[in-house]
Amino acid sequence: MLGRSNVVSLDKALLLLHQHLPPCHSRIISLPLEETLGRVCAEDIISPENLPPYPRSTMDGYAVRARDTFGASEKLPAYLEVSGEVAMGEFPEQGPQPGGCYAIATGGILPPGTDAVIMFEHTIRIDDNMVEVVQPVAASANVIAVGEDIAKGEILLSKGHCIRPPDIGLLAGVGLDSISVFRRVRVGIISTGDEIIPYDQHPEPGKIRDTNSASLAAEVRNINAKATFYGIASDNEKNMETLVQQAKAINDVVLLSGSSSVGTRDLGEKVIAKMGSPGILVHGVSVKPGKPVIIARADDTMIFGLPGHPVSAAVAFDLFVRPAIIHFSGVTDSGLPQYRTIKARLMRNLNSASGRTDFIRMKVSIPEGREPEAYPILGKSGAMSTMVKAHGFIEIAEKLQGLKEGEIVEVRLFD
Amino acid sequence: MLGRSNVVSLDKALLLLHQHLPPCHSRIISLPLEETLGRVCAEDIISPENLPPYPRSTMDGYAVRARDTFGASEKLPAYLEVSGEVAMGEFPEQGPQPGGCYAIATGGILPPGTDAVIMFEHTIRIDDNMVEVVQPVAASANVIAVGEDIAKGEILLSKGHCIRPPDIGLLAGVGLDSISVFRRVRVGIISTGDEIIPYDQHPEPGKIRDTNSASLAAEVRNINAKATFYGIASDNEKNMETLVQQAKAINDVVLLSGSSSVGTRDLGEKVIAKMGSPGILVHGVSVKPGKPVIIARADDTMIFGLPGHPVSAAVAFDLFVRPAIIHFSGVTDSGLPQYRTIKARLMRNLNSASGRTDFIRMKVSIPEGREPEAYPILGKSGAMSTMVKAHGFIEIAEKLQGLKEGEIVEVRLFD
Repeated sequence: MLGRSNVVSLDKALLLLHQHLPPCHSRIISLPLEETLGRVCAEDIISPENLPPYPRSTMDGYAVRARDTFGASEKLPAYLEVSGEVAMGEFPEQGPQPGGCYAIATGGILPPGTDAVIMFEHTIRIDDNMVEVVQPVAASANVIAVGEDIAKGEILLSKGHCIRPPDIGLLAGVGLDSISVFRRVRVGIISTGDEIIPYDQHPEPGKIRDTNSASLAAEVRNINAKATFYGIASDNEKNMETLVQQAKAINDVVLLSGSSSVGTRDLGEKVIAKMGSPGILVHGVSVKPGKPVIIARADDTMIFGLPGHPVSAAVAFDLFVRPAIIHFSGVTDSGLPQYRTIKARLMRNLNSASGRTDFIRMKVSIPEGREPEAYPILGKSGAMSTMVKAHGFIEIAEKLQGLKEGEIVEVRLFD
Repeated sequence: MLGRSNVVSLDKALLLLHQHLPPCHSRIISLPLEETLGRVCAEDIISPENLPPYPRSTMDGYAVRARDTFGASEKLPAYLEVSGEVAMGEFPEQGPQPGGCYAIATGGILPPGTDAVIMFEHTIRIDDNMVEVVQPVAASANVIAVGEDIAKGEILLSKGHCIRPPDIGLLAGVGLDSISVFRRVRVGIISTGDEIIPYDQHPEPGKIRDTNSASLAAEVRNINAKATFYGIASDNEKNMETLVQQAKAINDVVLLSGSSSVGTRDLGEKVIAKMGSPGILVHGVSVKPGKPVIIARADDTMIFGLPGHPVSAAVAFDLFVRPAIIHFSGVTDSGLPQYRTIKARLMRNLNSASGRTDFIRMKVSIPEGREPEAYPILGKSGAMSTMVKAHGFIEIAEKLQGLKEGEIVEVRLFD
């Protein structure tokens, strides 16, 4: 086992995690277009058609032969015969003779023979049959050509692309009404501890409600993965092993919450170690909160033992579980920021032990007409209320011994 | 009618929009806790309980009377009798005698008589019955007191708060398994135009597929509102009026797409104007793309006529429809940024007409070891492919005539 009883740095833990992530071979499913928002393309999506399929006007005006307007000016206008009109939604079988034009609206198909559109604004209508053109128009002006938006055979969206609203418009535009996407990442959640009861039951003295399974499931759903709750394992090896085995069998990621602090004994670690190869990669990371996390790979499943304290569990989820879920989703990393952030002035000194990465919850307030202010929310990591009062957090890097009041910090906002 | 035939500035359009938003009186529904992620609290949520309900240890160690450790040091340790253990999940009916202690794990309830926990790390176990304490511990040390996390009667979440994962943990912690939230904002979507056919049909020459209803529905769902599609209205007043009336009857917001450009004639405007009071507020905003937008209030419903061009429709949605939906959601504005952004170096000069706000789509690339670079994606606003190639956009303010290559711009990333 790697890293046994050694607390490792955050960088080292992330390196071990990324080195040991199993290959992502999520199953591919086909979904109706309207259900694909936020899903990840399982293959390159190729356009079956040209868009537009016919040359279209991008303006309201007259479809013309460009050469009929060459040399036209205020002083020496060109006169064109208006010999027809392109009706919206109809295909113009015929077009104007040379020296003639058809009235056309935005989106109308160019009639045969014409190659440009002159805007209404650059014409003067003389009578029912004649229009005066006061400036020339180049060939292709105000026209979107066949395949100019999308060419048949072009890649619309690449494998690994996460589908956004405009992508759905584009796919609709070429008539793709079902799309191959990766199945959602499956995450199994198990709470552990003899003292834990389901949150909808009333606790006898000594028992406490299971809060982590509810908040972790929400974290999982928030990043478009599927959370399944396997129940509460008592501090009994057989019972815990059965639940973890069940969860491992059909999930990409399994989360045990409450199993990694010394207090809940070494049972979580013992059970996780038995689940498969290569086993436990990290037990303990030099972060605060979140230190007693277990990171393991068991065959093709990642298993995480998360601290029981809600704040520690949230930090460990964000640092380690989230990247694993994103890996299994098959999404291509754009390198772009994944989070909302705000720069704010730190309103209090913060100390931090060198050699440890600290995550400090922050409340941000924006006084009228002044720059945003960040107030640390200090409190025991068992206190859930501190998470709820915070808008986000800042990271104090391992090498720093703290931050000074008045410094500008970047607060990462909670989703 | 306000603003008739006058194109107004972006600021003016937003002012008129915000001035005329109907009061938000969304219906209140009760949801099971696990379905409340992203929903908005319809009332202040009050804690029915103290959390924790009993004083608990936040460390593994020994529950003691703090005064029994006063003066203890490496040279002059205190010796305490280990007369019991707090079993996890059980309520300790009895506690140690003065001069004694109970072993306790993180989360364990403090036994009667004890008022502090001394960490294992600060003790030396002498034998089964005796522990040596080498430093004093203050009263309340390593203990979370009754109600210290949450006090009974305290407001957990305020009316208007949007529920995040840690909030769900907190609510579970005090046993609230159903929550009063506002109903989702309802948005009715109508496409218009004789040339438009459903996207899953094959277009005859001259027809084009309806793309905006699909992408607008996705935009609506992306901000947690409920989208309902009412179909495609032909360019026929009666038909359009019937559909808009149906949609208005049960939606907070109605979107007509394709109805506001001169090309689709003034039918959309005519129909919208008939729907109720005060009617059309804005027709035409000095933005590019997105200019031919209609903003109207008809009684308690906001009706928007969006440009038919996909990019224009997306910009108009973002500028005007999104704030209206957020208003109806009942969420309290925190003033915090709602979007992910990235600062990047502009890689090309951009011209912009003064007196008009321009939104330029941007592709962002992050070359190894260098700062992010932003490349404008120029293209006709009818071209959907430009939206898909972009990672986000920048705004060129009304008073500017453009931006210079090399300037640092803030790109707002698409969700």
